[in-house]
Amino acid sequence: MSKRVAVIGAGPSGLAQLRAFQSAAKAGADIPEIVCFEKQEDWGGLWNYTWRTGLDEYGEPVHCSMYRYLWSNGPKEGLEFADYSFEEHFGKQIASYPPRAVLFDYIKGRVEKADVRKWIRFRTPVRYVEWDAGASKFKVSSHDLVNDKTSTEMFDNVVCCSGHFSTPNTPHFDGLDRFNGRVLHAHDFRDAVEFKDKDLLLIGTSYSAEDIGSQCWKYGAKSITVSHRTAPMGYDWPDNWQEVPLLTKVEGNTCTFKDGTTKDVDAIILCTGYLHHFPFMAEDLKLHTANRLATADLYKGVAFVHNPALFYIGMQDQWFTFNMFDAQGWWARDVIMGRIALPDKAAMQADVEERVAREDQNEDDYACIRYQGDYVKELIAETDYPSFDVDGANEAFFQWKKHKKQNIMTFRDNSYKSVITGTMAPKHHTPWKDALDDTLESYLEN
Amino acid sequence: MSKRVAVIGAGPSGLAQLRAFQSAAKAGADIPEIVCFEKQEDWGGLWNYTWRTGLDEYGEPVHCSMYRYLWSNGPKEGLEFADYSFEEHFGKQIASYPPRAVLFDYIKGRVEKADVRKWIRFRTPVRYVEWDAGASKFKVSSHDLVNDKTSTEMFDNVVCCSGHFSTPNTPHFDGLDRFNGRVLHAHDFRDAVEFKDKDLLLIGTSYSAEDIGSQCWKYGAKSITVSHRTAPMGYDWPDNWQEVPLLTKVEGNTCTFKDGTTKDVDAIILCTGYLHHFPFMAEDLKLHTANRLATADLYKGVAFVHNPALFYIGMQDQWFTFNMFDAQGWWARDVIMGRIALPDKAAMQADVEERVAREDQNEDDYACIRYQGDYVKELIAETDYPSFDVDGANEAFFQWKKHKKQNIMTFRDNSYKSVITGTMAPKHHTPWKDALDDTLESYLEN
Repeated sequence: MSKRVAVIGAGPSGLAQLRAFQSAAKAGADIPEIVCFEKQEDWGGLWNYTWRTGLDEYGEPVHCSMYRYLWSNGPKEGLEFADYSFEEHFGKQIASYPPRAVLFDYIKGRVEKADVRKWIRFRTPVRYVEWDAGASKFKVSSHDLVNDKTSTEMFDNVVCCSGHFSTPNTPHFDGLDRFNGRVLHAHDFRDAVEFKDKDLLLIGTSYSAEDIGSQCWKYGAKSITVSHRTAPMGYDWPDNWQEVPLLTKVEGNTCTFKDGTTKDVDAIILCTGYLHHFPFMAEDLKLHTANRLATADLYKGVAFVHNPALFYIGMQDQWFTFNMFDAQGWWARDVIMGRIALPDKAAMQADVEERVAREDQNEDDYACIRYQGDYVKELIAETDYPSFDVDGANEAFFQWKKHKKQNIMTFRDNSYKSVITGTMAPKHHTPWKDALDDTLESYLEN
Repeated sequence: MSKRVAVIGAGPSGLAQLRAFQSAAKAGADIPEIVCFEKQEDWGGLWNYTWRTGLDEYGEPVHCSMYRYLWSNGPKEGLEFADYSFEEHFGKQIASYPPRAVLFDYIKGRVEKADVRKWIRFRTPVRYVEWDAGASKFKVSSHDLVNDKTSTEMFDNVVCCSGHFSTPNTPHFDGLDRFNGRVLHAHDFRDAVEFKDKDLLLIGTSYSAEDIGSQCWKYGAKSITVSHRTAPMGYDWPDNWQEVPLLTKVEGNTCTFKDGTTKDVDAIILCTGYLHHFPFMAEDLKLHTANRLATADLYKGVAFVHNPALFYIGMQDQWFTFNMFDAQGWWARDVIMGRIALPDKAAMQADVEERVAREDQNEDDYACIRYQGDYVKELIAETDYPSFDVDGANEAFFQWKKHKKQNIMTFRDNSYKSVITGTMAPKHHTPWKDALDDTLESYLEN
C-alpha cells in the first residue's frame, strides 16, 4: 500500500489510531505508511506530566493540563481498552480510581506491546496543513524542534488527534488586571501544596473546579470559594467550601459576586474550560464545533464532511474516553484502508444532523451516557475492534454519578466490575482523602 | 505603486515600519499597500499590559512579558524618537525613567498622529509564510481570531517585527517537577504584591532578574536569592538580598546551589531570557541567530541575506531600542521603495561577517554601546530619518551604567539631557523605591 497517513498527536486518541493500524498489520493487512507528529518529548498526551506552564523549552504552548496528585475522576471500568485489560497490564485487578502515574503506565503498556513508537516523530509540532486539490493530497508542514528545521511533506490522509483539553478558555473579569495575587487557568495548575493555607476562588462548575477544589481542600487550602454562572454544583461540600454566584469584579484582593457578597482571596483559578483549537489547519480543513456529544461536521463523529480524507478523533465532549477513541481510530483506519465506504456529502451531513437532533433529545446525564455508549457500539459494530459490554460500562458511570452525589470526597473509595475481564476491582487500601502518596508503587499495594 | 508589504507585529518595531512608510507618503511618495498583522487587540507590543499568562482568550501564546509597576530600566534619553520628542508628546519635559503607562502613551502618541492604525489587522496572527518562487512573492496565511477564519494572501515583501522578548527560554533544573511552590518564567511575572512576605529564588543575572528582584524587594518580598551560572551581578544589594551559585536541585521547597548551600523558598522565577522564535516562517525564511548585536544572516542588520525581499526589524540584542527600530524601519522602507539598492548575496554575507568580527572586538559594555550607536548612525545616514546626536545618547547610557553601579536602588532617581530637544529632564518628585503609584497622572506631576 503506497498511501501515507499523518496522525497529529500521540496522546490517547493518536495512540488509538496507531494501535488500530498496527493491529491490522499484525492480522496480515497491507497498511499505509504512518507518520505521527507529536509536539511533546514523550507520548501519552495529557497524561504526560510536566512542571512547565505557558510555553515550553522550545517556545511551544504547553499541552499539559495535568497536575500533581491527580486521580482519575471517573471509574477505570468506563475507559478500559477492549484489547488490553488492566489485568493484562498489571498482572492483577486494581482499584477503580487510579492516580495519573497508574493510568499513564497502562496507556503506555499497550502501545509498547504494539511497538508503534517508531512511527512517532517526537518534538515535531505540525505548523500548517493545506489541501492540494491538484494532487488530491494534504501538504503538511512540521517543525523538528530539536534541529529547528521546518519541512513539508505530502499525505493522502490526515487524522487529527490533537485533543481539546489543552487550550484554555479564559474569560476576563473586571479588575483581574489589578488583582494582587495569582490568576491562573486550570490548565496552568500544577501543585496543590502551593495553595496550602490560602483562600482560593475557583470560577466554574465542571470537572476542573470540582477536582482542583477537592484536591486543594485535601492538601490544606484554608478555604475554597466556587463561583458559578448558572447554578452551583450542589454537592455536599466540606465546611470551608462555599458556592457563590458569578464573580462581578475584583478590587485589590477582594472579589465581589453577583449577589453583592464579597470574599478576600489569595489566588483565582479559572476553571472555565477549554477551546477546540486548530491553529495549524487551513480554513477549509478546520473543525468548528461546540464541546458536545454530537460534534459539528464529522460524519460518524470522525470523518470531516467537507473533506473526508481528513479525520478528527476524540473531539466530542466525553463520558467515554479511551475506548471511544479506539472505536473511532479503528473506524477511521477502515475508511482509509477502503474497508468502509463513505456515502456522499449530503448523506454525511444528514448523519451529522441526525446525531445533533438526537443529542438534543437527551433529558439528563444518564441519557447522555447511554447516547455516547450507543455511539461506541455503533462504531465497534462496523470494525474488528473487540466487542465489549458497553451497557456494563454505562452502568459503572451510573454508579459513579450516584457515588459522587452521596459524598463528593469519598466517591473514589468505591469499586466497580470490569466489563472486559468480568472481575470486581479491589477496594483501595487508603481512602482518597487520606492518600497523599500518588505513586504507582503505592497504588498497586492492594 | 502596486507592491504589497506585510508587516508582522505592531509593537515598537512594527510601528516604526508603519511610521516610516507613512512619513514617505506624507512627503508625497507613492507607497506600497501596507498590511500589518497583529496578534494582540491593541498596538504597542510588549508595552501593552495584560493580566493573562500562557495562552490568551483565543488560545494564542500571550505576547506580554510586561508586569505591573514596571519603570523603564534605562533612561528615556537613550530611546527618544528623533521625529517625535517627549516634549512634543507631553507638552513638557518629563523625568528620565518613566513607568510603563507613560512610555506606552508616548509610543501611541506618534502613531496616532501618523494615523497608521488603519493599516493594522488586530487579533490576526500570521500562521505561515512561504516563498512562492514562481510568483516571486510571499504567501502569507493569517488567522482572523475574532471571526475564526484563516486566509492566505500574496505579498511582495515581508517585514518581520515580531520581537524576541516574548518566547521564554526555560531550562530545567532537577526537582522542579516536584517543587511545592510556584515556578514561573519572568515572562509570566505580573504582580510583585503576590510575592510580599515571600522568600524568592530568581535564576539569571540579566535585566529580568535585576528588575523583577528589585521590584519584589520594593513591594515587600521577605528575601531575594539570585542564582547565577557564571558570575553574580555584583551590585550593592539590600540586606535581604543574596547572590548564590547555580541551582543544582530542588527538594520540596529546599533549593541547593553549586556551593552546597541551601535556601527554602516559596517561589522560583526563571529569569533565563528569551528565544528568537518564528514558528510561522518556512525553513528558508526563518532567522536563526543568537541574541547579539550583530545578528546572523541580516545585511545591515535588517535584510535577510537568503531572500532580501524579507526584512527583520529589532532582532538585535539592544542598548538602543525605539530609535534603532526607526533607523531600521526607514532603511527597510527605502530598499522596498527602490531608493536603496542591495548588493549581491556574497557582498551581503561579507557585511554580516564584518559586523560579527567587529562586535567580537568589543572589550566592554561601553564599547558595545558605541558599536550599536555607530550602527544607528550608519543606517540614519542612508535615509531621511531625522539625524540626531547619537553620541549624546551614548553618553546617557554611560551615565546610566555609572548610576546603577553607584546604587542599584536609586539609579532611576537621576536625570539626563534630551538629545532631541536639548533640555534637561526634571528630577522626579519621588524616589523610585518609594514611588508605589506608577500611573501616568502621578508621573507627570513634576
